[in-house]
Amino acid sequence: MTLYEFAPSGNCHKVRLMLSLLGLAWRSVAVNGRDREQKSAAFLALNPFGQVPVLVDGTVTVRDSQSILVYLARRYGGEQWLPGEPAAMAEVIAWLSVASYEVWQGPAMVRAFHKFGREVDLARATALMTDLFAVLEQRLASQPWLALDRPTIADIAVYPYVALVPEGHVDLAPWPALVRWLGRVQALPGYVGMPGMAVTASP
Amino acid sequence: MTLYEFAPSGNCHKVRLMLSLLGLAWRSVAVNGRDREQKSAAFLALNPFGQVPVLVDGTVTVRDSQSILVYLARRYGGEQWLPGEPAAMAEVIAWLSVASYEVWQGPAMVRAFHKFGREVDLARATALMTDLFAVLEQRLASQPWLALDRPTIADIAVYPYVALVPEGHVDLAPWPALVRWLGRVQALPGYVGMPGMAVTASP
Repeated sequence: MTLYEFAPSGNCHKVRLMLSLLGLAWRSVAVNGRDREQKSAAFLALNPFGQVPVLVDGTVTVRDSQSILVYLARRYGGEQWLPGEPAAMAEVIAWLSVASYEVWQGPAMVRAFHKFGREVDLARATALMTDLFAVLEQRLASQPWLALDRPTIADIAVYPYVALVPEGHVDLAPWPALVRWLGRVQALPGYVGMPGMAVTASP
Repeated sequence: MTLYEFAPSGNCHKVRLMLSLLGLAWRSVAVNGRDREQKSAAFLALNPFGQVPVLVDGTVTVRDSQSILVYLARRYGGEQWLPGEPAAMAEVIAWLSVASYEVWQGPAMVRAFHKFGREVDLARATALMTDLFAVLEQRLASQPWLALDRPTIADIAVYPYVALVPEGHVDLAPWPALVRWLGRVQALPGYVGMPGMAVTASP
């Protein structure tokens, strides 16, 4: 498998994390996000949206980090990471939507403002992040994992940009259940982190 | 089944459309988005994100319009609308991510600015919409449906806010393949529309 990725991207990290949790071998092709290489003609042929990550597995090309998690879970992970039963699958998918919008426009943009100097409406991003963290805190105060009674790709999809908010100058102390959940993810067999992530005490 | 919905919402329409395509019976409970009833304590108990639609089917509660499409497709639609094969499923899910972010922040926000007076960065929403429509136009110029060789929930997820852009004072004429795709969706057996949607010639 080949992963086209920009190393500092949290969306790319979630794919690296899933590959590692599943014990899969892969090679990396760097796409330089600072030079906007993901908008080059060569890359647009791979993904017309001009976004990393993209995973190529034999004849299969998958774009979009959430979609890549679905692919890896269904092809290599069996029922554990994304169950086929309709209600359970829908519960996981609902968190992928949260990863695509609330997580991306909230904590990921707060970080992007500080780390990459990206043009961001910081007040809006901070408000989205605060609302999101309140929902996550309430949820994780009463159950260990976001979607089901075990870790699923819902947790993997939401995790990176929460763990990376210290790079957005955000202190996670007001959300202790969220911090404990970060610790549970970090304790999963095969876990890999990336620079800039909050490192928590054991869960 | 009970659908909690705000009638003018395109996200609610996509669920009504899917229910109709599958020939399912349901009842509607109105949630008044203009009075922000979706942020009331009673509704937050149903969905802590404070968003419509929410579908209740017996003991199962599903939030998030994309997730509801997954639930309905897997429970009542069989393989047709969301296949279980990993690569095909991932292709459909990638379009659900597009519905959650690009469609929502692009055409849906252009419409919300004009129709509901919502506070929107109109330049940003218009740019996202234009980029999205260019990708959709290129895709639909060479294949009839977004994800696979047949209609799937990818098409249903993206459809409403594209069809509703006339309410955002946008003329779809520059994207003829996109308009023909709207016509194909509108020709599906069991199709239902809503006020404000572009009505196209037969596909």
